[in-house]
Amino acid sequence: MATITAPTRTVDEILSWYNGQNPGVLTNLYRLLTHGRLGGTGRLVILPVDQGFEHGPTRSFAANPQAYDPHYHFRLAIESGCSAYAAPLGFLEAGAADFAGQVPLILKLNSHDILHEEPDPMGAVTASVQDALRLGCVGIGYTIYPGTVDRRFLYEQLASIAEEAKENGLVVVVWGYARGGEMKESKDETALDVVTYSAHIAAQLGAHIIKVKLPSAHVWDAKSKQNFEKHNIPIDTLADRVSYLVRSTFDGRRIVINSGGAAKDDESVFDEIRAIRDGGGFGSIIGRNSFQRPWDESLKFLDTIMGIYEGSIA
Amino acid sequence: MATITAPTRTVDEILSWYNGQNPGVLTNLYRLLTHGRLGGTGRLVILPVDQGFEHGPTRSFAANPQAYDPHYHFRLAIESGCSAYAAPLGFLEAGAADFAGQVPLILKLNSHDILHEEPDPMGAVTASVQDALRLGCVGIGYTIYPGTVDRRFLYEQLASIAEEAKENGLVVVVWGYARGGEMKESKDETALDVVTYSAHIAAQLGAHIIKVKLPSAHVWDAKSKQNFEKHNIPIDTLADRVSYLVRSTFDGRRIVINSGGAAKDDESVFDEIRAIRDGGGFGSIIGRNSFQRPWDESLKFLDTIMGIYEGSIA
Amino acid sequence: MATITAPTRTVDEILSWYNGQNPGVLTNLYRLLTHGRLGGTGRLVILPVDQGFEHGPTRSFAANPQAYDPHYHFRLAIESGCSAYAAPLGFLEAGAADFAGQVPLILKLNSHDILHEEPDPMGAVTASVQDALRLGCVGIGYTIYPGTVDRRFLYEQLASIAEEAKENGLVVVVWGYARGGEMKESKDETALDVVTYSAHIAAQLGAHIIKVKLPSAHVWDAKSKQNFEKHNIPIDTLADRVSYLVRSTFDGRRIVINSGGAAKDDESVFDEIRAIRDGGGFGSIIGRNSFQRPWDESLKFLDTIMGIYEGSIA
Amino acid sequence: MATITAPTRTVDEILSWYNGQNPGVLTNLYRLLTHGRLGGTGRLVILPVDQGFEHGPTRSFAANPQAYDPHYHFRLAIESGCSAYAAPLGFLEAGAADFAGQVPLILKLNSHDILHEEPDPMGAVTASVQDALRLGCVGIGYTIYPGTVDRRFLYEQLASIAEEAKENGLVVVVWGYARGGEMKESKDETALDVVTYSAHIAAQLGAHIIKVKLPSAHVWDAKSKQNFEKHNIPIDTLADRVSYLVRSTFDGRRIVINSGGAAKDDESVFDEIRAIRDGGGFGSIIGRNSFQRPWDESLKFLDTIMGIYEGSIA
Amino acid sequence: MATITAPTRTVDEILSWYNGQNPGVLTNLYRLLTHGRLGGTGRLVILPVDQGFEHGPTRSFAANPQAYDPHYHFRLAIESGCSAYAAPLGFLEAGAADFAGQVPLILKLNSHDILHEEPDPMGAVTASVQDALRLGCVGIGYTIYPGTVDRRFLYEQLASIAEEAKENGLVVVVWGYARGGEMKESKDETALDVVTYSAHIAAQLGAHIIKVKLPSAHVWDAKSKQNFEKHNIPIDTLADRVSYLVRSTFDGRRIVINSGGAAKDDESVFDEIRAIRDGGGFGSIIGRNSFQRPWDESLKFLDTIMGIYEGSIA
Repeated sequence: MATITAPTRTVDEILSWYNGQNPGVLTNLYRLLTHGRLGGTGRLVILPVDQGFEHGPTRSFAANPQAYDPHYHFRLAIESGCSAYAAPLGFLEAGAADFAGQVPLILKLNSHDILHEEPDPMGAVTASVQDALRLGCVGIGYTIYPGTVDRRFLYEQLASIAEEAKENGLVVVVWGYARGGEMKESKDETALDVVTYSAHIAAQLGAHIIKVKLPSAHVWDAKSKQNFEKHNIPIDTLADRVSYLVRSTFDGRRIVINSGGAAKDDESVFDEIRAIRDGGGFGSIIGRNSFQRPWDESLKFLDTIMGIYEGSIA
Repeated sequence: MATITAPTRTVDEILSWYNGQNPGVLTNLYRLLTHGRLGGTGRLVILPVDQGFEHGPTRSFAANPQAYDPHYHFRLAIESGCSAYAAPLGFLEAGAADFAGQVPLILKLNSHDILHEEPDPMGAVTASVQDALRLGCVGIGYTIYPGTVDRRFLYEQLASIAEEAKENGLVVVVWGYARGGEMKESKDETALDVVTYSAHIAAQLGAHIIKVKLPSAHVWDAKSKQNFEKHNIPIDTLADRVSYLVRSTFDGRRIVINSGGAAKDDESVFDEIRAIRDGGGFGSIIGRNSFQRPWDESLKFLDTIMGIYEGSIA
Repeated sequence: MATITAPTRTVDEILSWYNGQNPGVLTNLYRLLTHGRLGGTGRLVILPVDQGFEHGPTRSFAANPQAYDPHYHFRLAIESGCSAYAAPLGFLEAGAADFAGQVPLILKLNSHDILHEEPDPMGAVTASVQDALRLGCVGIGYTIYPGTVDRRFLYEQLASIAEEAKENGLVVVVWGYARGGEMKESKDETALDVVTYSAHIAAQLGAHIIKVKLPSAHVWDAKSKQNFEKHNIPIDTLADRVSYLVRSTFDGRRIVINSGGAAKDDESVFDEIRAIRDGGGFGSIIGRNSFQRPWDESLKFLDTIMGIYEGSIA
Repeated sequence: MATITAPTRTVDEILSWYNGQNPGVLTNLYRLLTHGRLGGTGRLVILPVDQGFEHGPTRSFAANPQAYDPHYHFRLAIESGCSAYAAPLGFLEAGAADFAGQVPLILKLNSHDILHEEPDPMGAVTASVQDALRLGCVGIGYTIYPGTVDRRFLYEQLASIAEEAKENGLVVVVWGYARGGEMKESKDETALDVVTYSAHIAAQLGAHIIKVKLPSAHVWDAKSKQNFEKHNIPIDTLADRVSYLVRSTFDGRRIVINSGGAAKDDESVFDEIRAIRDGGGFGSIIGRNSFQRPWDESLKFLDTIMGIYEGSIA
Repeated sequence: MATITAPTRTVDEILSWYNGQNPGVLTNLYRLLTHGRLGGTGRLVILPVDQGFEHGPTRSFAANPQAYDPHYHFRLAIESGCSAYAAPLGFLEAGAADFAGQVPLILKLNSHDILHEEPDPMGAVTASVQDALRLGCVGIGYTIYPGTVDRRFLYEQLASIAEEAKENGLVVVVWGYARGGEMKESKDETALDVVTYSAHIAAQLGAHIIKVKLPSAHVWDAKSKQNFEKHNIPIDTLADRVSYLVRSTFDGRRIVINSGGAAKDDESVFDEIRAIRDGGGFGSIIGRNSFQRPWDESLKFLDTIMGIYEGSIA
């Protein structure tokens, strides 16, 4: 196992990678990087709550009935010291005025539901850059599904949205989830080469921040596998793979954060956080694990995660 | 059976949920909530007459020949003290000047006919936000069909229309009817999880007012069923289900109203109204039951419904 | 057989139904209703010449070679005292300046040809509202095909065109022809319920004037059939059916005119005109029967038709 | 065989048919009709060079290697006294400045290649009206394929382009080639009824000048055949058919020109030119026969053709 | 084997071929033709790095880990004296400010990935002309896939982009790769007629610079083969074929450059460069061969190539 020393990056250094972006974008990136408990550390923990749209309200909120209320998530993000809160239009509209300025907001511009099964999902654009501006957001979010047959429409939609967002000084956050017919097995969607390819595509599409799942040690593409072996790229530990993910995403010149893998219990989640930290990752975006438990437990759970990123917890 | 106490909500409280919407939207919401017999109670009864387009004139109006005349419906909505009258372009154009200002109008922007059978319906956009403004409407209506294979096009069309409507101070009313191939049986379309998921999607899409069918106790999705059971969510009575619907729609922070279920006679309808009232629902949208009977009977029928909502009838 | 008294309507009364339309639209409606021999009677006879596009020049004009010349039709409409002349872009462009102001013009904005057979026809938009304005037209025409699988695209195209036309003060004339896979037999396309449903849809789409075929006594939809029977709606004579058509089209608040049915000889056509008159219809749009005969015979034929509408011929 | 006297038309008479078009269009029509050796005769010979795109450079230019050079065609059109030179964007861009003003230019706005076989061809729009204006063209060209399943998209594209072209004073030239599944045999594409229907459609779409193939005596549609027979329309000689083509194209009120049929040698081509002249046609558009031979032979070939049109050659 | 004397072209001569383009385009062409080691020779060597998007980061960069860093490629292009550096949005955004002005930049506007196999590829437009302007680029790049079933959409997309680019003074570089169902075998994609047809199409679409693969002696289309034979066009040596490619691309009036064929080792690459030089080609675009080796070797490799073009190496 490779020994990995996590980089410590200052906000100034990170902003320097975005040299050439307009001052509006830099200002909103600065807000994200300096807000909340991890402000100034170069790490981010973002609370995303789009599960009501993606999986329905019952699956999402029945475990913690307070979470049906859109104000709950604003409060959770604020109290726990998250770097930002990301959600679709409805949830942000229902609280953006009430909590104006208290936490950076990211408007998810496309969403997908599961009322019709489909092997090649395509989200719908459910809000606009203009909506993000009127709601006081620091950025917008968009999900691409690399691997789907119609991904080109998603890339074109994102390209157009991202251009408008940047012109208006908004940060562009891209969720990259590989899906579709060529991903024969579920494990292909988190294969190391697939996840890093997806992150690279998002970066090439002009994303400022990229969100992908944690990669497994599985490799989907035979030629990529040969490359990993021939060039002795370490991929055995999760920290190794996070390190490779960061490298694949412009050698660290773009912020890439992770959502959880197949974690079963809190300790597994915390171990993943440690691997992200040790592999030089930039942080986490944690939804269901955060809000599908009572308020106090949520705060404690997020406190531990931020502690690990801070280094106050080993 | 859970004992349910219906909330009494003031107009001020309801408007507070829409904090952040522009004064134009708040003004038109205020007009809706203060008009007619239920004005100020926080309840709504809306008359919708889009059946001529949706099912043809013969099925819709033969039972009450006066109803072929578009002026009839304006008069019915005004005389009965409805909160608003909703119809497609033609019907509103044929009377908006004659009855200008006498009842809040909602222009239905998309419509669907049944001259060609299709498992996954898609309405056509048959009028514009600009039409609604020139006709003096307080809002626009749009129907989504969650569950259909092409729902994303509907969501995107609605997103674009809703943004324009809000910019122009109009209230956005979304009809949510689950349809499509995954709804194997007709009963799936009114399953509790399906109806509440549809209402949640409409709310996330930025609807101010959501209209869905009354949910049955049937649950379509196995994982949602597990959640209802595991978390002891009461769903046995219609009032329970209305209560869960309100919760699913941003925990009551968005107005959700209902159309009738499979009511056979007036008493069944009235019982449904009582369940909506007792479950904390916001009111009804009642078309065919209202106008497919003679004028006097229509007035009496609507009088009873409003009486139940008011509490003057038990 | 019901005894039917044809209404006599003044121009003022008709314009009152369009209350709320802008003065530009009212002005052009007035021009249509006051032009030609039937001017002021509340009846219209319109000459449409789109057959060259729809069926090819040979089928359309070989019977009367003068009719290949676009000027011929302008002259025919003017000499015979028609209320208006309707044609596609090319035919109007070829004479609009030469006959400027002498007859109200309606520019047909979509057209369809028969060089490729298709069960669900869709016309192409071959001209614009701007074209109609520069050619001095009083209105535009558009054909919808209710019953086709893709009718929603037609409805959306019409909605957009109609909005622009109205903003510019043009009258919107909609041709409604049911077609498509669900019309199993040719006779379904002229079934009473189908024709009246089509006319109702056109009216809901905001048409000022609606043109449909004369309905037969056949009924396509079982539930509509039940309604006709249960509510004792007379449909046996053609005049009955015209009367029901007028009722279905906003109870007479929208102008609905007819093209011929399967007339074999002139007397049959004249009988149809009498039925339209007696049933309270608004007039006719007569193409092939008008121009596929020599000039003098055409004038005589149209003279008789207008005489019937006027009442000078029984 | 009918004896045919070719009309002699002046430029003034031709322009009178376009009465109502704006002065910009009339000016560019005038330029076309007065340029080159046939200037003022009412006849046109146009050099089109789009074969490089349509069939590839090898098939098009190997026979005369000088023809790979875009300047060659400008020189050929100028030297031979052609009325105009028509080509796609690239070929015009490569010489429009060098030969500015020396020959009227027509920019072909859509093109098609044969690197993928397809029964229902659709060209791609490869340049814009704005391109035509910046290159100093007198008009634009567009090819429609009547008979193809998706022809409506072509008609709509043309309608939109033609409107823009006319607003900017450009002449609209439409190529009409019947194709597609209903043209069962190759000979159907040049059937008399098909060619004249295609020309009529182009005229109805607002074309100023129409280009079709020379029609054969074959008739594709049974009903049209009956009409030819019943009404004794002469179609036996090529001159008869050209005469009928002119009649089908607004009875001569629109300029219709021809490309060659299945000519085998120069004498056959010249006989076709005589038939066009004697049938009252307006001229030719001759590509491959013009430039797929050495410079001197090309000039001689075109000299003969123009002589026939002029009448200096019998 | 034909003896070929490579042309020596000056920048002035090349610019003269683009006579009629606006001064903005001429200025940027001048910058490209005068930059780097080959500046002023009329030859170009361009570094393209779009492989991360096209094939994934692992296949592209594992062989030379420094190449994950977007700054690496800017430095390589600058140090080696390349004429320009071409890449997708993300890679250019990550360095355009840091290396502003040091090397001409070409923004690749469409890209394609291989996470879903498809016989008829279509790239996605992932950036805009406006992006190219804000990043200080001299031009934009776009890939067409002649031979694919949907190529017309690509041609239309390119036409629209190219028009906007030219209006803004940007050079238009078109990559032409034949693909699709009619290319039965892989070798068809580099057949001489296919490559030259693709280059001709790109030129007709208005490209200023065209990039295609080196053509083989295989001929795909039987009629083109007959033409090569009948007209004794030499195609045996690579220099012959480069010469024919230049001729097919407007007889040398458009810059056409090549990427490598199936070269196995550096000497084979150098031999190809010699053939391009001797056949009168305009230069090379060399990606993987350039950066998939250590820094020093890359510089040496590119030094040799430029030496061959310069003539300092035989």
